[in-house]
Amino acid sequence: MTTTDNGVNVQALLDAREVLKGAPEAAQFTWRATSSWQNGVHSTVKIQNFFGLGEEQNHKSASVFDADHPAVFAASDNGITPIEYLLVGLTSCLSAGVASVAQNRGIQLRSVEAYVEGKMDIRGILGVDSEVRNGYDDIKVTFKIDADASKKEIEAIVAQSQKRSAVYDLVTNPTNVTVEVT
Amino acid sequence: MTTTDNGVNVQALLDAREVLKGAPEAAQFTWRATSSWQNGVHSTVKIQNFFGLGEEQNHKSASVFDADHPAVFAASDNGITPIEYLLVGLTSCLSAGVASVAQNRGIQLRSVEAYVEGKMDIRGILGVDSEVRNGYDDIKVTFKIDADASKKEIEAIVAQSQKRSAVYDLVTNPTNVTVEVT
Repeated sequence: MTTTDNGVNVQALLDAREVLKGAPEAAQFTWRATSSWQNGVHSTVKIQNFFGLGEEQNHKSASVFDADHPAVFAASDNGITPIEYLLVGLTSCLSAGVASVAQNRGIQLRSVEAYVEGKMDIRGILGVDSEVRNGYDDIKVTFKIDADASKKEIEAIVAQSQKRSAVYDLVTNPTNVTVEVT
Repeated sequence: MTTTDNGVNVQALLDAREVLKGAPEAAQFTWRATSSWQNGVHSTVKIQNFFGLGEEQNHKSASVFDADHPAVFAASDNGITPIEYLLVGLTSCLSAGVASVAQNRGIQLRSVEAYVEGKMDIRGILGVDSEVRNGYDDIKVTFKIDADASKKEIEAIVAQSQKRSAVYDLVTNPTNVTVEVT
């Protein structure tokens, strides 16, 4: 008998699920980021702490990200564009789900590659045509998965990952955003 | 007379707007990312090229991002969580817009800080309660801007940035996502 090991501690997650059933207040998380404008359309964004399980939490180290626009937008390209960060989040969220679901189903993964592309008509952000939206028109994610499983089992894992993905939900459904100036 | 210089080449953007009015096909961009699963819920995501202005384009260098879950999720915390990447994109997009709009209005910025927080009930992703959504319930962005302008002018700049923000649009409105397995 071989043991499935995708590196996901599924038992801890199942235990957390049981605990949170009786403690909904512990399930309330707040994720945070702070951005500092540098110059032009270049900002740096820092992430370190968050709130969850009823108390302040920390990542083991701070992460800092550069966001800018590329040369074709007459900018300095000191980092990827803000809209590309969405693709980072979407593809990594779905991949994390694939690993977790596969672990829970006893399916060993060998490799999981995901390619994502988002189509966007930049006449929206440039204000050329008010009928054109600013964000992506359409996003497509393509998974290539090598695992001890049938194509049908793999498709079912990916479907379950979509069903539980925080970023997939956020992209496909509207979310309220409040913007204030202090 | 002083010249406003926020580092944004507004003239180039206004020129692009004029050109794209008559060339909508050049305004069709495709942004891309490729993720590779590492172990557990840790993936690395690479971004380098994109398509726009009718041809293949490249960032001046490739960017690679780590996404993982923190220790409270029984994971290795090799990077921020996927859902935190959304906050990186949202805050940097709105900040880029603030710099661009301020430049266009002749308002000199001295500093632009933005703090964003997203509230999430993790009973959704854990499957505790199907009535709880997976993504953020609510996101709040707070700007602190030092500029040669009145509070009212600054608020108007932030409002215009929201109106033209790709990421703000993506978060507040639904977007179609197709997921396939090859």
